[in-house]
This record gives sequence, structure tokens and C-alpha cells, in this order.
Amino acid sequence: MMAGGHDLDAFFHPRSIAIVGASERGLYPAGVLRNLMDYGYRGRIYPVNPRRETVFGLRAYPDVASLPETPDLAVVITPRRATLSVIEQCIRKRVPAAVIITAGFAESDDEGKALQDELARLVADSPIRVVGPNCAGLANVLDHAIVTRLPVPPLPGNVGFVSASGALMMALYGVFSDHRLGLSKLISLGNQMDVTLADSLGYLAADPETQVVGAFVEGVKDGRAFVAAARTAQAAGKPIVLVKSGRTDAGQQAAATHTAALAGSDRVFQAVCRQFNLVQVDDVLEMTRTVQMFSAWAGRWPAGRRVALVTQSGGMGSLTADLCSLAGLALPPLSLQLQERLQAMGHLLTFGDLGNPTDVRGSGAAGPEAGETLLPFLEDPETDVVVLLLAKSAVRAEDVATAKSIIVAARRTTKPLCVVWTGQRVPVGDVSWPLAHRLLVEAGVPTFDQPSDCIHALRRVIDWRAAPLAPQPWGERSPSQAQPSPASPRIGGRGADTLSSCQSTALLAHYGIHLIESEVVQTADQAVAAARRLGYPVVLKALSLDFSHKSDAGLVRLNLADDESVAQATSELFQALSGHEMEGVLVQRMAPPGVEALVGVHEDAQFGPVLACGLGGIFVELLDEVALRLPPLRAEEARAMIEETRLGRLLAGVRGQPPADVDALVDLLVKLGRLAASEATRLVSLDLNPVIVLPAGQGVKVVDVRVVWRER
Amino acid sequence: MMAGGHDLDAFFHPRSIAIVGASERGLYPAGVLRNLMDYGYRGRIYPVNPRRETVFGLRAYPDVASLPETPDLAVVITPRRATLSVIEQCIRKRVPAAVIITAGFAESDDEGKALQDELARLVADSPIRVVGPNCAGLANVLDHAIVTRLPVPPLPGNVGFVSASGALMMALYGVFSDHRLGLSKLISLGNQMDVTLADSLGYLAADPETQVVGAFVEGVKDGRAFVAAARTAQAAGKPIVLVKSGRTDAGQQAAATHTAALAGSDRVFQAVCRQFNLVQVDDVLEMTRTVQMFSAWAGRWPAGRRVALVTQSGGMGSLTADLCSLAGLALPPLSLQLQERLQAMGHLLTFGDLGNPTDVRGSGAAGPEAGETLLPFLEDPETDVVVLLLAKSAVRAEDVATAKSIIVAARRTTKPLCVVWTGQRVPVGDVSWPLAHRLLVEAGVPTFDQPSDCIHALRRVIDWRAAPLAPQPWGERSPSQAQPSPASPRIGGRGADTLSSCQSTALLAHYGIHLIESEVVQTADQAVAAARRLGYPVVLKALSLDFSHKSDAGLVRLNLADDESVAQATSELFQALSGHEMEGVLVQRMAPPGVEALVGVHEDAQFGPVLACGLGGIFVELLDEVALRLPPLRAEEARAMIEETRLGRLLAGVRGQPPADVDALVDLLVKLGRLAASEATRLVSLDLNPVIVLPAGQGVKVVDVRVVWRER
Repeated sequence: MMAGGHDLDAFFHPRSIAIVGASERGLYPAGVLRNLMDYGYRGRIYPVNPRRETVFGLRAYPDVASLPETPDLAVVITPRRATLSVIEQCIRKRVPAAVIITAGFAESDDEGKALQDELARLVADSPIRVVGPNCAGLANVLDHAIVTRLPVPPLPGNVGFVSASGALMMALYGVFSDHRLGLSKLISLGNQMDVTLADSLGYLAADPETQVVGAFVEGVKDGRAFVAAARTAQAAGKPIVLVKSGRTDAGQQAAATHTAALAGSDRVFQAVCRQFNLVQVDDVLEMTRTVQMFSAWAGRWPAGRRVALVTQSGGMGSLTADLCSLAGLALPPLSLQLQERLQAMGHLLTFGDLGNPTDVRGSGAAGPEAGETLLPFLEDPETDVVVLLLAKSAVRAEDVATAKSIIVAARRTTKPLCVVWTGQRVPVGDVSWPLAHRLLVEAGVPTFDQPSDCIHALRRVIDWRAAPLAPQPWGERSPSQAQPSPASPRIGGRGADTLSSCQSTALLAHYGIHLIESEVVQTADQAVAAARRLGYPVVLKALSLDFSHKSDAGLVRLNLADDESVAQATSELFQALSGHEMEGVLVQRMAPPGVEALVGVHEDAQFGPVLACGLGGIFVELLDEVALRLPPLRAEEARAMIEETRLGRLLAGVRGQPPADVDALVDLLVKLGRLAASEATRLVSLDLNPVIVLPAGQGVKVVDVRVVWRER
Repeated sequence: MMAGGHDLDAFFHPRSIAIVGASERGLYPAGVLRNLMDYGYRGRIYPVNPRRETVFGLRAYPDVASLPETPDLAVVITPRRATLSVIEQCIRKRVPAAVIITAGFAESDDEGKALQDELARLVADSPIRVVGPNCAGLANVLDHAIVTRLPVPPLPGNVGFVSASGALMMALYGVFSDHRLGLSKLISLGNQMDVTLADSLGYLAADPETQVVGAFVEGVKDGRAFVAAARTAQAAGKPIVLVKSGRTDAGQQAAATHTAALAGSDRVFQAVCRQFNLVQVDDVLEMTRTVQMFSAWAGRWPAGRRVALVTQSGGMGSLTADLCSLAGLALPPLSLQLQERLQAMGHLLTFGDLGNPTDVRGSGAAGPEAGETLLPFLEDPETDVVVLLLAKSAVRAEDVATAKSIIVAARRTTKPLCVVWTGQRVPVGDVSWPLAHRLLVEAGVPTFDQPSDCIHALRRVIDWRAAPLAPQPWGERSPSQAQPSPASPRIGGRGADTLSSCQSTALLAHYGIHLIESEVVQTADQAVAAARRLGYPVVLKALSLDFSHKSDAGLVRLNLADDESVAQATSELFQALSGHEMEGVLVQRMAPPGVEALVGVHEDAQFGPVLACGLGGIFVELLDEVALRLPPLRAEEARAMIEETRLGRLLAGVRGQPPADVDALVDLLVKLGRLAASEATRLVSLDLNPVIVLPAGQGVKVVDVRVVWRER
């Protein structure tokens, strides 16, 4: 196949391309061919169209079979009913890759769904890889292989972009062009029948020509592959900046009719982004701006959080200082050395304040001498990034000189610099694009319209840079390879079911997790003996899978303090259970007071088992706040998970309470993570509810467990 | 004075203007005069400059005294040391208004501070009103009275703008010009030595030519006047959209060196915005976009929250549906009537989905026939606002026809319409401002670059429209007129001090607020008798102002259940108090279990007394969440206040708990609001901590009170 060795290489480095359905009219039938010709594609192009001799002067072939060679890539732009036979021909011709631009499949009507199913079966049984259907094509900008229709010439660069929406990819291409954002590769995913979002991200993460990845995402079909791609990108030092739609019911409904994407749980997706350092933003221009900052600074990202603000306007300075503060960025006071150096430039500082922000109004600092003012900041070893704030009422000729001066200073160091340039961009009467802005951006100085646009992007870059590499999820082996542990319960062939108390206890014990001291008994006498061994007061729980809410059914008795009450309560419970399937009665030591935590695992349709941890008790409803992670976890991730919610604050001790045993909870989460990763294919859900976290040094008490299990 | 009768009219409707320091060079010395001449000011202009015979062909006068008439407005652009004598001359000449553009006063150095103090004294003792110093001037755009320097001609409109930052006002003027935002009046506040933010907002709220107000705010000097202006604007149906800097320590520090503004507590400011329906946004372009939507739709704002999304791109549709959902906007399904009407337009719906969003791709709907598609939505009685989403890769000639078609449809109804137009704006090579976008905006169809920009503005407009008119703060009379109530304690001439238990109880009782049943005793026997009367169990509290944290000092005894323990504890407390100032021992009935609320009042430097309410106990630290309001409150505001925090959720009953007595808490807040409003000048702080809210119908129990009081 291709030289690169990656199974998607044929899409991006084709030596020859067949365009099935090429024509001299039509957005794509003509557009793809024209793009290849106009933007300098160097390989061989074969139009396929039985009704034409030539297309735009190139010889046309009646079908794929009659092509003079096997093309590396076939582009399919035929009516939907013809696609099946075209792909059959491609497979017979051993074409390694096809892009189906044609729409009208699973996103459309019943006939379309049936067609796509048939197409999917065909493709699954052959080595061909397919992008689409219902997509806008793809492009390798550096190689001039533009297999889509780009209305303006592509600007080469280090940004790879993947989109679940074709129309939005085209619109964003226009936005990127305005922002002078250089691209390496573009991929429109369409219905992701074969090549998925995860495949594409994985390809870009490994692509040496791509340093930064942008993505518009609707749903994630294969969560595990998605996570693997995210981790590959992180390991390679490449940020992935994404916008995801389908986060709410309204958005999911809209997405479903659009690309038939299953959007999944937004909370889990957000947790995955946090865990694997994916940069999730809220909208497409925010993505563009963030990608632009990453792209401009690739390889020389800020070393820390120390920002120096240099401002022409006091108002912009205070506004931006607020934004930095709210974003967790530091504005340290200027070093004495820097102050001295600036004081020596007295002409700049008529009314200025040598603080942070440094106010440089009343000087030439916002004009053609701006670079002179900036240099001391750029060269200051105690500054990680410099932000220049300009307030400009009108576009002026001197703006270009200002921009050039800033660029000269920026090039004298590797310190990241960005500019906020608020004010007029479009002069009335004299129509000209603000050249100054464009010069800055093209010179690698990200330039923004208002402070928040800059500071939000900066925070993303700095946070991304500071995040540690996430651990490999699901441990050493993939979940499908996981072997049942010796303690793995058998529940017979009934699909998913709740485990019995004994089965649950054994499963947990295998992973080193122990419930609070308890014994299962069958008589009142046994109960009393057990209660004496455990120590009063005790709790009794009737064990029967027929009741899912034991407390509501009156099958739990709390705080029993003597033999008599234990004996009587036991009898009552057995009476209540008569006629039901039962395991016995559980005698349990009363948990000492502590902080009530919620700990559990549930299976997500996209991402498999997900660990959850947060405050328990009334806080579950009151706060609706839980930290989520994919297992397994290292201790530091478990600790971060605890600190992510108010559980962390309560455990640290509020209102004079002693700090709680966070280490013991960390240990529990790590063990539970190991269980969840190893039992990924069988575990449907597991709730430890509640877990009582005792004062530091005294451990945790797991009071109850409920496991839903599935036979493979 | 002026015809309008408002004391700021001279600034905006001057029949004659003197420019003191006018010259043919210099940004302001030349700029103000040129602006007045170039932009068609119709009054008389008098340059004042002792060193020139004429300025730009106008006869110059050596000083204010020698002017041939008393000008309505003097503009001062002299060096700072000359300003004092210029203002003295103005006062002698009975000039009613002056704008001091000169900088270098309180925002600068010690000399500047002293100069401003002197200037302030001079102005306070005379009828002259002064804007500035350290400001960028002001303008009445409709009257062509441009007393500043506007680099591009002003566009008349219905937006008034006030800015605490001169440079930022100029930059925003440039932004407004790009956005084709029409202005009525502009005011740069400078140091607010005399005319304040509140004065300016009040003027614009009353100005018939202003429908929408924008503001950049650093600090609020006179909170009460600010609130009064906000309420006037609300009563007049005029939105005030503001950005405030100085919200964090970093921003406050920067603002202080800039315009010497005291930024105040951000939480209180935010609460004031919520209470008086001020639209607070985070940054300057967000303000511009929000103002633009208000301005375009003035007088025909959406009647409700029902949004219809019409989209050219499925991806933009799902993304925008999410944003609507997160913003609390409704996306109801299309009515049958509307569906039928659309179905009859079959050519639009090749792949479309008749949902909400309605996908109109595959049709001419995003092109020159866009208006045809929109009309059924605009005419649908079940839709309050229509949002058209366009994804456009490149600027095309047909865009202008598209825009015109949209405008024609928009003009056929009064239904608010806005457009998100994502994609290229700046064609490469052929340089031209996107005319289509400009046409839309000028026709009153707000147009945005990305979905979130539109939906955030839309949410602001809809929320603003839905808010009820806030009650008059501080009741009937202003706080300075408030008379001490008969129960007003006297604490002697010691400034602020903590009230005794008896004083506090009497003060509360006067406003109908009662503490939990309790008696003050002086002996153990009295204590036992009191405990019997109150009913066991009881609590004992030693009353002495020498101890501010009674629990920590061991001066509180909880849960005493019999005569003996009461007698003994009382003796111990008297022993512990010996040698200290003391009131006695308080015997209090133990509060029954309930939800612990925090209720209090504290004095804010800007806004006077502020009521606070939230969850008490450990939640104070854990949630750091409290609702704030200026007193007095009506019952519905007290209820909204409770529902604003998680206290509301807990009172409603979580985890099977019965609902608590919200009505009783509402009653308590209303009474406390009355107290706070009436005693505004004397009350420093008042804490009811805790207040126990019992189950519905059983009331609230105020367990403890602490009042800090000040002699007038």
C-alpha cells in the first residue's frame, strides 16, 4: 500500500485519484476535479463518467474497472443508488481507499439507512477503507491533494481539522482563511460508516505534518478508540481542540437527524476531555482562536502561568486583569530589574503605572515604537507570556508600522506574545482589510478582538501545557481481552442481573475492597451471636434480590443496641421475607460518624465503565455534583478526582472538623478502578453507598454494595 | 438654563461652546474643534487661546472672561495647573457646564490629587457642573454636538454610551462603527469628580432620544444614585448593558491606578444588577453585540422564550440547539399549520428535517430565496423569535441578494429575526467589506459570527424583557431621611459597637422579629424556674460583650435536660464571667430540628445595607453561596432570593424530607428588609445565626442574633 504504512495514508498521500461522477457542472462533481487541478495536485487524475469522453480536458473512463491503473483513492459523487456498485468495482479493482461524498444514507430516510447497511457489510468484508458517506471530502494541503471544494486557495500550516459536519467544515474553512490559519489536513467525517472520528484523530496525532488538531464533534461511536487517539496526541505533545454538539436533548435530537450520531452522556464526555487533556470549547470561533494560539506557539508554549500585561488603556488593563484572575493566571509584580529597565525608557511613561498591568499610555508604545516597549517584557526571565493590549479608535496608516515593530521585537525572543487589538477594523469609505492584524497573525503573534477572546485561549493553552500525561486506560490489555478474575461471579444465562450479597462481597474482596464488619445469619440466635462478636450497636439488613430498595420496604433496622432488640428484629425480618427468594439477614456493625461519600461505577455506552465519586447523602440531590474518570486510576488521579468536587473541601475539614482520611478513600478508588478495568465487559454498575470516610488515619467504611452484572 | 430642564442638558444641547486650549495641533486641542466644525455643529464656537488670533479660521479669545457671551459649555484642554483658574473664570462667567479633558489629577500623582481636591471644592460651592477631569469628552450625535474626537463620522441611532475609560470609549467607538451601531449620546466619565456614572445613566434613562444604554464601568461611587438611575431606566423600558472591571483584586488594583475608582464588592454589584435588571456582560464585544440586538429590536422585543431555528447546516443546528437549551430558551416543535405550510414549499426540503431546528439544506433557502423560507416562521403565531443559521465558506456576489431577500421577509412582520452567518468574511484578493452583513445590520436584523454570540445576546434580551420592575429601594424615603425607630438603641458616643442581647432583642421585636423562647436570668434558681417555664431541654448562654465567640470560650451549654444540670451549668457560667462586664445568662429553649439558614444584613460601602440569605451550618463554608438583595423586599423577591441558592432546594425537601416552612422564612426576610431599610444609617451588621426553618406550617426559630450598631 502507501509508503507511510498507516492504513489511512491512501486518503492523504494518493499517487492517483479516480473521481467517480466527475462532471463539468455541480458543486462537487466539478469542484473536486477543479480543486485538484487548480491547487497543483501532482498525481494522476482519472475522471469516471460513462456519459463523457473528457472532463475539463482530462480523458474520462466509463467505470472504475476500465481505469488504466488501480488508483490509490476513489472519490464517489454519484447518485446514492449507484454507490453500492461503484464500491463493488473499487473492491474488485483493489482500490485501497474511497471517499463517498454522496448524501442520502443513514442520516436521511429508510431507503438510505438500508443502503448504508448494505454498503457497510460490503466494506467490512474487504480491505477497502471508506470515508463518508454524506461528507464534504478531505484534503492534504501540503501535498496539494485537495479532495473537496475549497473556494479560496488553502494556506499551508500545522493544523489538522476534522469535522462531523460538512457544511460547517466549509464555513470554518472560510473562517480559517480570514484568520490566516495554516492547515495540514482536512477531513469531513460524514456518517462515519467506516473511518471514524477516532481513526481520523489517531491519524492526525501520528502525522508529522500536524502539530495542532481542531475538531467539530457530534457523537463518539467508539469511545475506547477515541480515548486511545487522545492519548496518542497527548503523548506526541499535540493539543486537540474540539467543539461538541449534541450535549443537550435538543442538540442530540438535531444531531441524530443530521448524521445519525449517538451523542452520549455529556458529563462523561466532559470527564473524558478533562482526563485525557482534550481542550473542549463552546463554539466554533472560540475553537478557531484557541487553535490559532496553539498553532502560532507550537513547540514554544508558555513555561508557566505568569502573565505580563502591557496596556495602552487603563480600562482595558483592569478588565483584562480581572479576566486573568478569574482564569487562574498569575499577574506577578514587575521585577526590580524590569522596573529599572523600563524607568530608563522614561519617554514611554508619562502617566504610566509600573505595575502589572503596565500602563504605557502617553507614549509611543502603542505606535511604531511598540516593539521597544515590549522587548524588556519579552526578555524578562520572570514572565512566561506577554499580552499587549491596544485600544484603537480607527484604522490608521501607522498601524502597519506598529505591527512591524511588534513583530521585530517578537522575533528577538522565543517568549510567547499575543495582542488584543480592540477598536475599528474596517475604515468607512476606504475599504481595506486591516493589514496590521494580518501581518501580526502571519508572523505568529496571535491577535484578538477583545480581552476575553485572548485570555480564554491563553488559559486553555497554559492549562493544556500543565496537565500530566494521562495513564493508559484499561490497564495493560484492552477490555475485550480481559479475563474473568477467579472471583468473577456466574449468574447463569439471564443477561444482566443484580449480584447477591455474597457474590458482591467476594468480588470486592478479590480486589482488596472490604465491607464494614458484618456476618450473614439464618436465625435470631445466630444474629445475636454475630452482634456480640461485631460489637453493639448493629444494623440488620434482610438480604433478598426481590427488593431493590431495602430501606423503603422496611428491610433495614438501624442502631440496635442489645441482644433482645437484635433477636426481635431478626425474627421480624425473616417474617417479612417469607415467600421471597432470600440469602439471610446481614448483621453489620453500625458505621461510626464520618463524611458520607458516593463511590460507584457505571457503564457508559460510548466509553465503557466510568468511575464516579462525590458527596453522598443529601448532597447527592442538593449538589448534583460528581467527579467521573475512566479506570484504572493512579493515586494522584484519584486524589484529583476527590478534589474536583466539594467532597474534597468537606474531607479537608470545615467548621473545625478534623481532616478526614483522604488517603484511605484514594486507596479505595484505585482498587475500584482496577476492578472496573479488569471486569469491564461484565460489570454493568456497582454502587458503594454509602462509604463513610472517618477521621485521618481511621480509614473508610463501605456500608453497602449493589452490583449489576452481565454474563459475557 | 437649558430648555430641557435637566441639570445635564447644557452638556448635550449647548447653543454655544468655548474650547479653552483650542489649537491647530494636538489630539484634543485641534480634534474637538475640528469635530464640531466637520460634523455640522450648528451652535456658536469660541476658541480660547491667549497665544492665537484665530484657530482654524475662528476668532480666538484670550480667556473665558473676554468671551462675547456666556457659553453653555466650556471644554477645558489646558495643562493641568491652568485648569483651576479656567474653572474659576467659568464660574464667574456663570458657565453652567464644563468638560475637563485634561489628565494628571487623582489618577496620577500627589500633586494631581491635591489639584483635584481643590477643583472639587470650587465646583461644589458653585452651580457649575463638571464632567471629568481625565476624560475623552462627550457627544450628542443627533445634534452634531461632538465634543470629543471621533475619527470616523458618527452614525445616529438610539444607543447612549457611558464609559469610565476614555481610551476604551474611543476603541469602542471604532467597534460600534464597524457594527453599524447608531448612537444618540456618548459620555466619557473620567475621574467622576462631579458628574458621576449614576448622573449619566440617569440622564440617558430620561433622554427621549436614547432607547438602549451601554456602559463600561470601573467603580460605583454613589450606589444609591446608581440604583435610582437603574430603576428609572427599567421603568422607562430601557435596557442598560454594562461591562464592569475591577471585579477581582487584580482588576481593582489596576482600576485604582487608572481612574481612582473604588470598585467595591463584586458580589454585591452582581446582586444589584440582578435585582434592578441591569444586563451585566463580561467583555466589550459581548456588550456591543447585546446592545446591537436591543437596539435593533427596540420596542418589539420577543414576547416569550420560544425560538425557531432555521439552519443551512445540520452541525450548526445541533450546536445552536444545545446553546438554546443551556440558555433556557425553548425550541418547541413546529405547529402542524407551519409544517403544512413548509411542506407546500417542497423545493426547499430535499433532505430537510421539519423539526426545530429545521434543516433547509439542499434548497435555495440559504441563497437569494432565503426570505421565502423564513416568512412562514416569521408569521407563525407560536414563535417568539426566529434565528437563521447560515454556513458560508466564501463571500459570494449572491450574498447581497440573500441579505436583501432576508430583509424583505423581515419587514413583512414585526417578529424579531436574527442571523448567524458563520464563514468567510474577507475574500482573499478581492478586498471588500461583506456588504451582505452590513445590509442586514443596517436593516435591523442583528447578525452574528457564531451561534453562541447570538444565543447569549438573545438570552439577555429575553431575560431582561421577562423581569418584573424592581421595587423602589429603601422604601418611601431616602436612607438619609430615615428616623430612628422608637426601639432604636442608644450606645453612647463610641462609634460602632455590638448591641447587648436586650438591645438586639428589642430592636428585632420592634420589627416583628422574635427570637426563640428565652429568658435572661441572674441566679441559678431563676435559671431553673425559667427552664421549667420554657420546657426542657434548654440551652444556656452567658451574655457578655467581652466575648465575641461564646462557643469557643465555653460560654454556651447545649441540651440541658433537668433542673440539676441547669443549676450547675448556670453557676459555672457566672463563675466564668466573674470579672467581666455581663448581662446575665440566657436560658433558651432548644431549637427543634430543621433546615439551618443563614440570614443577615451587612453594610456595603457603595450600596448601604445588603440582605443576605443562604444555607447555614457547614454549608456556609462548603458552598460559599449566598443570595443578596438591597432592602426592602416584597414577599415575591424574598421568595426569589431563597430559590436563588441551594437553600431553596433543601427547603423544598430532598431525600424524602417534608417541605419546610418557606412562607415563614419569606416573612422573616420581609421584616428584616424593613428593619434594614429603616435603620440604614445606623445598622453596620446584623446576623441571625442560625435560623432554623421548621417543617411547613411550623414557622422558623431564630436562635441567636448579633447586631453591630453605630451612633449617627
